[in-house]
Amino acid sequence: VVTGTPIGELDTPALLVDLAGFERNLARLADFSRRTGVAVRPHAKSHKSPLVARKQLDLGAIGITCSKLGEAEVLVDGGITEGILVSSEVVGPRKGERLIALAQRAGVTVVVDDPENAAELSAAAERAGLRLDVLVEVNVGQERCGVLPGAPAADLAEHVGRLPGLRFRGLQGYVGHLQGVRDLAERTARCNAAMTQLVDTRRLIESRGLPVNIVSTAGTGTHEIAAEFHPGITEVQPGSYVWMDASYARVEGTPFESALSVFVSVVSRQRPGQAIVDAGWKALSTDAGNPSVKGRPDLTYAPAGDEHGRITGDDLPPLGGKLEMLPSHCDTTVNLYDRFHCVRDGRLEEVWPVAARGATQ
Amino acid sequence: VVTGTPIGELDTPALLVDLAGFERNLARLADFSRRTGVAVRPHAKSHKSPLVARKQLDLGAIGITCSKLGEAEVLVDGGITEGILVSSEVVGPRKGERLIALAQRAGVTVVVDDPENAAELSAAAERAGLRLDVLVEVNVGQERCGVLPGAPAADLAEHVGRLPGLRFRGLQGYVGHLQGVRDLAERTARCNAAMTQLVDTRRLIESRGLPVNIVSTAGTGTHEIAAEFHPGITEVQPGSYVWMDASYARVEGTPFESALSVFVSVVSRQRPGQAIVDAGWKALSTDAGNPSVKGRPDLTYAPAGDEHGRITGDDLPPLGGKLEMLPSHCDTTVNLYDRFHCVRDGRLEEVWPVAARGATQ
Repeated sequence: VVTGTPIGELDTPALLVDLAGFERNLARLADFSRRTGVAVRPHAKSHKSPLVARKQLDLGAIGITCSKLGEAEVLVDGGITEGILVSSEVVGPRKGERLIALAQRAGVTVVVDDPENAAELSAAAERAGLRLDVLVEVNVGQERCGVLPGAPAADLAEHVGRLPGLRFRGLQGYVGHLQGVRDLAERTARCNAAMTQLVDTRRLIESRGLPVNIVSTAGTGTHEIAAEFHPGITEVQPGSYVWMDASYARVEGTPFESALSVFVSVVSRQRPGQAIVDAGWKALSTDAGNPSVKGRPDLTYAPAGDEHGRITGDDLPPLGGKLEMLPSHCDTTVNLYDRFHCVRDGRLEEVWPVAARGATQ
Repeated sequence: VVTGTPIGELDTPALLVDLAGFERNLARLADFSRRTGVAVRPHAKSHKSPLVARKQLDLGAIGITCSKLGEAEVLVDGGITEGILVSSEVVGPRKGERLIALAQRAGVTVVVDDPENAAELSAAAERAGLRLDVLVEVNVGQERCGVLPGAPAADLAEHVGRLPGLRFRGLQGYVGHLQGVRDLAERTARCNAAMTQLVDTRRLIESRGLPVNIVSTAGTGTHEIAAEFHPGITEVQPGSYVWMDASYARVEGTPFESALSVFVSVVSRQRPGQAIVDAGWKALSTDAGNPSVKGRPDLTYAPAGDEHGRITGDDLPPLGGKLEMLPSHCDTTVNLYDRFHCVRDGRLEEVWPVAARGATQ
C-alpha cells in the first residue's frame, strides 16, 4: 500500500488509526500529567508498538508498562530502553533468565507477589552481577495477582529489600476490575477505596524505614480518580486511551476519543435485511461483546464465523460497500493484526507494525 | 527451543500439538475417504500451515480449502499449488487482482453468489488471459452467503457458464451452522435436509445441460452424514478434525481425538482456591466459551484479562506449575500463535510456523 492511498481503496479487513484523534488522545494524557503532577507510564498492551511508545515518551511519559516480558523485549528491540515496567509476575527459571538478559540492556522494573519468586529473581540477578528494580504487587480488589495490602505487602517489601539481587522501588496496585465500571460515582467510590489501601500500605512500609519511590496504578478509566491521591500515588498506567473502544465509550467521564477502527467490506448481500462483511472472530475480538458500526448506530454487527460478520438494519451498504467497525475491546483486537493503517484526512499516511502482536510469553 | 526439550521445560504460553493424536486424526479422515469414496479437501482455516496441508495431500486429500484469499496466498507461497478452493466470496477490484495473480501460479477455484461479482471476476480473468474455476455457493440453511437452492442457484450457474473468463465447476453448500449440533439424530436430520437441497440443485443444473463436477460441503461434524449423499456430493471440507477442541468434543459421533492444547504456567497463588495462569484472552480464544483443563475435569478456567486466566478448584498446582488447556475453539486459538510446538512422547519434536496466522485479507 502506498502513502496517500484514499481510505476507500485500502484492502479489508484493515486496522485503521485516525491519526488526528490518536494525537489528541496522546496530548490529553500529557496535559493530565502536567496538570496533576502524576507521572504516566502508558501501557503497551493496547498498542504493542515501539513507535507509539516513542511518541508517548516524547510527550513526557516516564516509561512504558508491559503486560508480558515478551512485550518488553519487543519494545527494547525497538529502541525503548528506559523506564520499562513488566506489570505481571515473571515466574520460572527460563523467564527469569530472559528478564535478567533484558535488564542487562535496558532499564527494567518487575513486579513480584511471592517471596520465593523474589528470591529466585534475586539469585539470577546476583549471578549476572546486577540488581533488579522491583515493585511489590498489592491486591487492592482485583483478586487476581498481588499480596494483600497492609502488613502482608509490607512484609514482602522488607523481604525484597533484604535480597541482594533486588532493589525495592515501591508498589503496584492495579485496578483492572474498575476501569469499566460505567457509573462515575460508583467507579470513584470503589477506586477511592482501592487507592486508600494502596497509600496506607505505602505509609506502613515507610514507617518501617523503607523508602517507597514508586506507587503505580490505574488506567484509562481510573487515572483521574487516582490522581486525587498524588503524591501518595506517583504514577498511572493508562493503555486504551490511545484508541478507546466501544466498551470504554460507555464508561462515563473518560476524556478520550475513538481513534481505532476495523475497515470491512460487504462480501455478500443475498438475504434481505442483512449484509455479510469480511470480518469475523479472527478480525474483531468479542471478549467484551460485539463491535459497533462507526457512525451508523442504526446498524448492528454480530460475528458469523471465523471470517464473516452479519450486519443487520434497514439501510445496508451494497455488495463491495465498506464500513468502519469500532472494536468492543481495543487490546484484543489490535493483537489480531500485523499492522496499523494510519489515516489522516481520508488518506493513508503511515503503516506501523504491531510489533509485539502475539508476544504472550 | 531445541528438538528433544522435555515438554515441562517449554516456555509458556505455548501452542502444543500432540503429534501422535494429530497423525491418527489425519489417518482417520483418509480412511473415511477410502471407505466412502468421498473426496476430502481439508480446511486450512484450522491450521493455517502449508506443512500440515502437505501432510493432508500426501494422505490423499484432493486439495485444500481456505477461508480467505490471504490464506490461499500463504499456502501457495508454501508450495501448495494445486486444488486450492477459496471458500468465501472474493469481492472488489483489489481482491480480484490478487485472485487472478494467484490463479496464474496455482490451481485455484473460487466461490461466487452474485452475478455482478461473477462478471467482474470474469472480466479480470479475461484481461489476464485465463479462465477461473468457479463454484456457485448455495445457501442450504446457514443463512450467511450463498444463493438460494433450486432455480436461483441454477440461474447463477448458467450465468457463470456463459461468462468467458469463468469455468463453472459445481456447487458449494457449507453447513457451518450444523457442525456443532451436539445431538447426532438432530444433526443428521438437519444435515440430510441441507444435503437434499444441494443434490437437488445439482440435478436441476444438470437437467439444464450444464455438467456439475464438484459438490463441496460439510465439515468435521457433518462429513459422515454428507457421505451418504455420495456421489451427488463429491467432497467434504473438514478442518477442525486435525486438532479437535472442547466444543467439538461435546458433539456426538465425531471420530477424532484432541491433539491441540495451550501450555500455561501458574504465575500467582495469592488467593485460596485459585491459581492465576499466564494465558488470558490473548492466548486462548473464548468465542466458543471457556477452555477446559486437559486431564483435570475438577478444575475450571476463566479468563482474567488480556494475559491472565483464573483456575479454580481444590487441588491446584503450585506457583510455577504447568497445565495444558484445551481450547474451546481451535481455529481462533491457533490464529493467536506464531508457531506450533509439536510434541511426541513428552518431548519437542518439531516447531511449525502458523504461516497464515492473521491472513484475514
